[in-house]
Amino acid sequence: MADILTKRADDYAKWYNDLVLKADLAEHSDVRGCMVIKPHGYAVWEKMQAALDGMFKATGHVNAYFPLFIPKSYLAKEASHVEGFAKECAVVTHYRLKSDPVHGVVVDPEAKLEEELIIRPTSETIIWNTYRGWVKSYRDLPLLINQWANVVRWEMRTRLFLRTAEFLWQEGHTAHATKAEAVEETERMLEVYAKFAEEYMAIPVIRGMKTASERFAGAEETYCIEAMMQDGKALQAGTSHFLGQNFAKAFDVVFTNKENKQEHVWATSWGVSTRLVGALIMTHSDDNGLVLPPKLAPVQVAVVPIAKNAEQMTAIKAYVAPVLEALRAKGITVKFDDDDQKKPGWKFAEYEFKGYPVRIAIGPRDMENGTVEVARRDTMEKQVMQMADLADKVEHLLEAIQSNLYEKALAMREGYTRAVDSYDEFKVAIEDGGFILAHWDGTGETEEKVKQETKATIRCIPLVGEVVAGRCMVTGAPSARRVIFARAY
Amino acid sequence: MADILTKRADDYAKWYNDLVLKADLAEHSDVRGCMVIKPHGYAVWEKMQAALDGMFKATGHVNAYFPLFIPKSYLAKEASHVEGFAKECAVVTHYRLKSDPVHGVVVDPEAKLEEELIIRPTSETIIWNTYRGWVKSYRDLPLLINQWANVVRWEMRTRLFLRTAEFLWQEGHTAHATKAEAVEETERMLEVYAKFAEEYMAIPVIRGMKTASERFAGAEETYCIEAMMQDGKALQAGTSHFLGQNFAKAFDVVFTNKENKQEHVWATSWGVSTRLVGALIMTHSDDNGLVLPPKLAPVQVAVVPIAKNAEQMTAIKAYVAPVLEALRAKGITVKFDDDDQKKPGWKFAEYEFKGYPVRIAIGPRDMENGTVEVARRDTMEKQVMQMADLADKVEHLLEAIQSNLYEKALAMREGYTRAVDSYDEFKVAIEDGGFILAHWDGTGETEEKVKQETKATIRCIPLVGEVVAGRCMVTGAPSARRVIFARAY
Repeated sequence: MADILTKRADDYAKWYNDLVLKADLAEHSDVRGCMVIKPHGYAVWEKMQAALDGMFKATGHVNAYFPLFIPKSYLAKEASHVEGFAKECAVVTHYRLKSDPVHGVVVDPEAKLEEELIIRPTSETIIWNTYRGWVKSYRDLPLLINQWANVVRWEMRTRLFLRTAEFLWQEGHTAHATKAEAVEETERMLEVYAKFAEEYMAIPVIRGMKTASERFAGAEETYCIEAMMQDGKALQAGTSHFLGQNFAKAFDVVFTNKENKQEHVWATSWGVSTRLVGALIMTHSDDNGLVLPPKLAPVQVAVVPIAKNAEQMTAIKAYVAPVLEALRAKGITVKFDDDDQKKPGWKFAEYEFKGYPVRIAIGPRDMENGTVEVARRDTMEKQVMQMADLADKVEHLLEAIQSNLYEKALAMREGYTRAVDSYDEFKVAIEDGGFILAHWDGTGETEEKVKQETKATIRCIPLVGEVVAGRCMVTGAPSARRVIFARAY
Repeated sequence: MADILTKRADDYAKWYNDLVLKADLAEHSDVRGCMVIKPHGYAVWEKMQAALDGMFKATGHVNAYFPLFIPKSYLAKEASHVEGFAKECAVVTHYRLKSDPVHGVVVDPEAKLEEELIIRPTSETIIWNTYRGWVKSYRDLPLLINQWANVVRWEMRTRLFLRTAEFLWQEGHTAHATKAEAVEETERMLEVYAKFAEEYMAIPVIRGMKTASERFAGAEETYCIEAMMQDGKALQAGTSHFLGQNFAKAFDVVFTNKENKQEHVWATSWGVSTRLVGALIMTHSDDNGLVLPPKLAPVQVAVVPIAKNAEQMTAIKAYVAPVLEALRAKGITVKFDDDDQKKPGWKFAEYEFKGYPVRIAIGPRDMENGTVEVARRDTMEKQVMQMADLADKVEHLLEAIQSNLYEKALAMREGYTRAVDSYDEFKVAIEDGGFILAHWDGTGETEEKVKQETKATIRCIPLVGEVVAGRCMVTGAPSARRVIFARAY
C-alpha cells in the first residue's frame, strides 16, 4: 500500500493528505470545511480522550455539558472575545423548514429567531453566564469543570484534522477565588498537556507563553505547548489561558470572599482538539504509512497466522492462544486475524500502512521451532523470538517503541533548532525551516514586521531553559531572553 | 434536603423538575429549550455511555464522527424523512458577524450561505451520502458504525432530560448486503438496549414494534423498548429502525453482490439519548430524593467518618483504610469524605438526596466494637456490620440493591398493567394510568380516534408474550393480538 503514498521528501503536504485518506483516518465531507472522522482515526481520538480524561479527573476535574448555541449578545459581552471570533461564526437564524410548491423545501420565513444564535466557537460566554448562578461564596469555589464537545469556526482554508470548520475538543473552564489559584491552575493544565504529549503521543514539546498578539481572545495570558513536525514547521498542540477577571466582569460573576467582601471570580480555560491527531501523524509517520505510538494505537499487536489449510489454522490458534491470553492479561490490545478471505501478505501490508506498532506472524515452521516472527513498525525490523516469555518480550518491545519514537522526535527537533543573532542570518535560516532562537525587543511592531517579511511567528517565550539577555535581532533594542520563531501550521 | 422536594403524590411533574434541579443533575439554560447538564447528571450519563459503548463494541461496532451540518438538499432527499423533521430544524444561514456602529455586533449580510445548513436532527442523510463512497462490493459490508453526538430538534415544549432542543445521544448506522442481515441487526440492537435497560438501569422494558404512525421518519419498521414511569405513564427508552433500502435509494448507495449484480444496500439505525437519565430518575427516585442503581451511580459507596477531633479522624482513617482498599480492588467506586468543613449530618443528607446507593458511617464507638453503620438508599434501612469481610458484604449489598430496584419497578409495572375488552372500560382505565392491553383493528383511523379521545397512544405491539386473537375494542373488527396503550412522555 505504501506505493500509493506520495513521499515526504517530494511533497510533505501531499504526503500528509494522502496518508490521512488512504490510512482511513478521515476524509472531507460534502459540507464545506467539515471532515468525516473514519473509524481508524476516531479510535486514535478515543484513546487520546481516555488518557486525557483520566488525567483531568486525577487533577480534580469533573465533566459537564453546556449548550451548543450561544446568543449573539452573549458573545458580544467580552469585547476582545467577540472581536477574535466574529469573523468565523456559524449563525442560526431560523428554526423551521417548510414545503414550497416551486422550490421544494425552503426555510420558513415565519420561523425567524428574535435573536440569532451562534454555534459555539468556544464556550467561555455561555459557561460564565451559567457560573453566575453557581457561585455565591468562596465555599462554592473552585469550579473545576471540563466539557468534551464539538465547536465550529468557519475557516476558509481547511486541512484534515489540522484546521476544519467543525472540530472535536475538550475545553476546561475553571473558576477560582484568587488570582494565584487561577494562575496555578493554568500552569497545572499546561503541564498536564505537556505530559500527555510527551508520555502518550511521544511528542517532545516546548512549554511557553504566547506573545500579546497570539493570545486567546479574552485572555490575560496564554500558555502553550509547541511541537515540531517532520517538515520543521511548528504546531501549537495545546493552550491554557489565564483569563483574569475578564469573563467574570462581563457576566457579573461575583462571590463573597472569606473577608465577607464581594469580589469577581478568577478564571482559566484550556483545550486540546482533534488537531492532535494531525500532530501525531505528522510527527511519527513515514513513507511506508502511519506510525502510531503504542500508548495511542487502537490495536497494539496484530497476530497473523500463515496457514495453508484449516488444520494448520487450528494448530496455530492453539499454539498462540496462551500468548494472546497473556498479552491481554497485561492490558495489551491484540487482534488475531484469522480472516481466510485475505492473504497474509495483504494483512502485513495493511497493518504496516495503518501503523500497528507490532506484528507477529506464525507459520508451520515457527511451530516446529517454537518461535514466532515479530516485526516492529517504527524501525521496520523483524526478529525471530522464542515462545518462552513472549508476552513479556512483546510488552518490553512496546515500551521500547514508545520511547524510541519520543527520542527520535526529540533528536529531530534538537537538530533543527538553532540560535541566530542577526536578522539577515534569520532570513536565511527560516527558509530551511525548524525552530529559531532569537532575541526580540518585545514589541508587536517587530513581531509583525518579521511575520510579514518571513512568514515566521513567535511560537512562544519558553518557560524553561537558560535565560540570557541580548539585543533584538531586528531593532537592536534590549531583549530579556531568546524566543522561538518558526513557520507554523 | 428532602423537605425542599415536592412530594410525588402531590405533583409528580413538579417533583421530577424539583429533583433534577436540586440534586444538581441539570438546569435550563438561557438558550431556549437547551439544558446545562451539571457534573452529577453528566457523571450518570458517562456511566451509561461507558456501558453502552462496551456493548456496542462487543457486538462488532466501531465509532466514527460525521459533520454537525446537513445541507438542506440532503435532508430533502428522502421524502418521509424531511417531512418528519422539517418542522423542528435549526437552520444556519450565515457564517460571519460584523461590527455595526448603530446595532453593535450584527450578522454580516455579505456572508450568506449559498445553501442553508441544518443542524443534524439525526444523521441518516449525511451518513448515507458518505457511505456511497465507502461501499463498492459485498466485501465492504457490513458497515457497523456508531456515533456519539449532539443533535438538535427545535421543540416548543421542553422538559429537562426528557425533551430538549439539543440533546446528547448515540446513533448507530449500519449497512448490510441483505435484508435478512439488516433485520437481524435491528433486532440485535433492540436486545442490546433492552439488556442495558434491565441490567444497568434496573428498568424492566417491553420489547415491541411501533405502529406505522409512530415509526421513525424514513423507516420500514421501528422496534422499541417501552418503560413505565412511577406515575404510570410510558416512556420510549430506545428505538432500533429497519430502514430497508430507503436511504440507499435516496443516496444511490449500491454494491456488487456475490452474483456480481448491482444492488442497493440495506440499512438500520438505532439510538438512545440523555432522555434515559430522565427515565432513570422517574423510575427509581422517591420523596427523599434521587435513587440510583449501583451500576450507574457515579460513586457507589460514600464513607463518612464521625470524628470530634483530628486524633479521632486519624484513627478512623487507619481503621477503614483496608476496607476502602478492598472495595476499590473489587472495582467499587468509593468516596471517603473527610471534609471537616461539613458536619456528618449534612453529608448524610446530601448523599441520601443525591442517590448514593450505600453510605457507611464510622464513629469512635464503632471502632471500639469493630463495626460500622451501613445505610442502603433504596430501602433507607440501616444496619450495623462487623468489619470482618466488610468489602464482600458491601459488594453483595450493592448487588441486592441493583436487583431490588429492578424487582420493585417490575412489580409496579405488572400491577399497573391490565387487559380491557371494551372501549368504555378503556376510557375509565386510562384515567387511572398505567399500561392497558387491548385489541386493536390495525388501522390508523382507530389509533387516531383513541389518541384524540383519550390522549393514549399505542406504545407498541409486543414482541414477546402470549398471542391471542380477539376483536378491536373500538370497531369490533378482528385483531391478531392485544397491543399496549398508554399515555406517554
